[in-house]
Amino acid sequence: MNDRIERLAAGLAEPLLVTTPANVRYLTGFESSNAAALVEPDRVRLFADFRYASSGRAVQDVEFVETDRAIAHDLAGRLSGRIAFEARDLTYASWETLTAGGLELVPTRGLVEALRAVKDERELEAIRQAAAIANDVFARIAEERFLRRTERELAWQIEQLFHELGAEGLSFPAIVAAGPNGALPHAHPGARKIQPGDAVVVDAGCIVDGYCSDCTRTFAAGALSDELKNAYAVCLQAQEIGLAELSPGRSGRDVDAAARDHIAGAGLGEAFGHGLGHGVGLVVHEDPRLSQVSEDVLAAGNVVTVEPGIYLEGYGGIRIEDLVVVGADGPEVLTSFTKDLVTVD
Amino acid sequence: MNDRIERLAAGLAEPLLVTTPANVRYLTGFESSNAAALVEPDRVRLFADFRYASSGRAVQDVEFVETDRAIAHDLAGRLSGRIAFEARDLTYASWETLTAGGLELVPTRGLVEALRAVKDERELEAIRQAAAIANDVFARIAEERFLRRTERELAWQIEQLFHELGAEGLSFPAIVAAGPNGALPHAHPGARKIQPGDAVVVDAGCIVDGYCSDCTRTFAAGALSDELKNAYAVCLQAQEIGLAELSPGRSGRDVDAAARDHIAGAGLGEAFGHGLGHGVGLVVHEDPRLSQVSEDVLAAGNVVTVEPGIYLEGYGGIRIEDLVVVGADGPEVLTSFTKDLVTVD
Repeated sequence: MNDRIERLAAGLAEPLLVTTPANVRYLTGFESSNAAALVEPDRVRLFADFRYASSGRAVQDVEFVETDRAIAHDLAGRLSGRIAFEARDLTYASWETLTAGGLELVPTRGLVEALRAVKDERELEAIRQAAAIANDVFARIAEERFLRRTERELAWQIEQLFHELGAEGLSFPAIVAAGPNGALPHAHPGARKIQPGDAVVVDAGCIVDGYCSDCTRTFAAGALSDELKNAYAVCLQAQEIGLAELSPGRSGRDVDAAARDHIAGAGLGEAFGHGLGHGVGLVVHEDPRLSQVSEDVLAAGNVVTVEPGIYLEGYGGIRIEDLVVVGADGPEVLTSFTKDLVTVD
Repeated sequence: MNDRIERLAAGLAEPLLVTTPANVRYLTGFESSNAAALVEPDRVRLFADFRYASSGRAVQDVEFVETDRAIAHDLAGRLSGRIAFEARDLTYASWETLTAGGLELVPTRGLVEALRAVKDERELEAIRQAAAIANDVFARIAEERFLRRTERELAWQIEQLFHELGAEGLSFPAIVAAGPNGALPHAHPGARKIQPGDAVVVDAGCIVDGYCSDCTRTFAAGALSDELKNAYAVCLQAQEIGLAELSPGRSGRDVDAAARDHIAGAGLGEAFGHGLGHGVGLVVHEDPRLSQVSEDVLAAGNVVTVEPGIYLEGYGGIRIEDLVVVGADGPEVLTSFTKDLVTVD
């Protein structure tokens, strides 16, 4: 048993059926969209179907069991007794199938996620590398022409750069959102050509050894209006206030509030509708959360984003995001591309 | 109300809470990873958080409601009475939250998926375009050098070609699996250089107007062994048997069995461990299923893959996959790249 499984097993009242793909991967190294692991104090069984059987049998320190494609149905016939499960991942249908098979199921939340939230040195190294590639991509994209190119062209160029620079994949499809599209926090890059005066939100990251990076900068395509320049200044101040709050023991809610209060104080509170940040690791959105409803408390080894946004509907948006390791000696900011407003042609 | 919603609503015993992202998109055109739609006989409400509010308000024929980020918690406070839900999508945790809010929840399965399985002409046109791009990509990749290039290099070239030819995205990351890696049905393209004698499985598809294509061909990198050539011939025969079985009224199980029996008859039954095929649409794996446990019956307007595989562990794999429209006048095969064994350098 590896150290991660040992730490998990030590805290379990009953066997835990792990079904969240990133949790299965974290505990066993095994990647599959249709797998489960049953963790007991002295034994781990890894379940997956035929398509993954050959790689499953190669996993160290677990007993691999090949199941039917309908894995919940298979496990219902195979397992018995009282078993804890991951309530935020298991569907109601799978819960019903397992229950109908006679299992006594105990819902749990976030047990493996809590372990994942604190990164070890090997994980941090992968995230640092993923962030370093993002830094290079932002430096190179800042040298590009923006005006009269479409969001989609720029997004594709960003994706090509990530590949050329050695990323194994993207954390998510690159976002390039210009002018009014920048006011949509989750915009898809489209056919709109970038115009003089657009604020251009670029949000992108990549994967190295399974671990994600995530960075946002907002560029000025030509001269911005005073309103957008002011929003940029307020957003950047809020971002730096948020960064300064990151230390072990602080609550995700307090960190969010510090940045949010600054934006509200500038009269732009309504324009910042999402949380301040999120953990990053095997998944690009994970624990801990920095938000108004977060119940997380920061710990050394957390990796989080700090990304306030100011969205002026129909007009434009600003978002500035760093990726940061929380540490006892202060935050280690991994995203080093300048946060001064960069004007592009 | 659009036609899709009307057809859904006509069959509902109680209001249906739709949470599966592709189902929300199918019914309303709205894309979000955190949305829900409540469909009633004379009313549709669309729920999403701040990040999607601006685009949500632009959706026709629905009442848009901005919710908290924790959408299940928000809906628990907002809705009441007896409501059906999608049991294969809703997590146990969300079910618990909604139930705790006093809702009486009725599990359903596959109601919207059944509508999605039968494509209309506009949907078929998007899928035909996505398949046409895949056909061009396979034709161009067949002209490339394979030998001594890594799987990853070829996969990236495939992804670049899809982009150049106008795809809006990939159905899934392109698979290039050579030699022993070809025996893993879900291999990730890796650093292994392609060697003479490798069978090289290439599985790729793209998205046009939200709809996916999916195609697999297996190439011979230089001369294949007699064993692999035989596996190729058996796989191709099984694939054509499966194709010939595709007609409205046939069961997914029977179509699977026809192809499977042929492979088993050649003594390779153990080497074909997955289902024969799956529906393709807004999602690359959807209903109907062609498999040993399928309960689906084919209908005109279904779009399915037919993709037997023969996997010889540690040695090599063969998979041949077409994308096909099921029609009353016979199957329309959309993937036109040759299925004769193509030898590449």
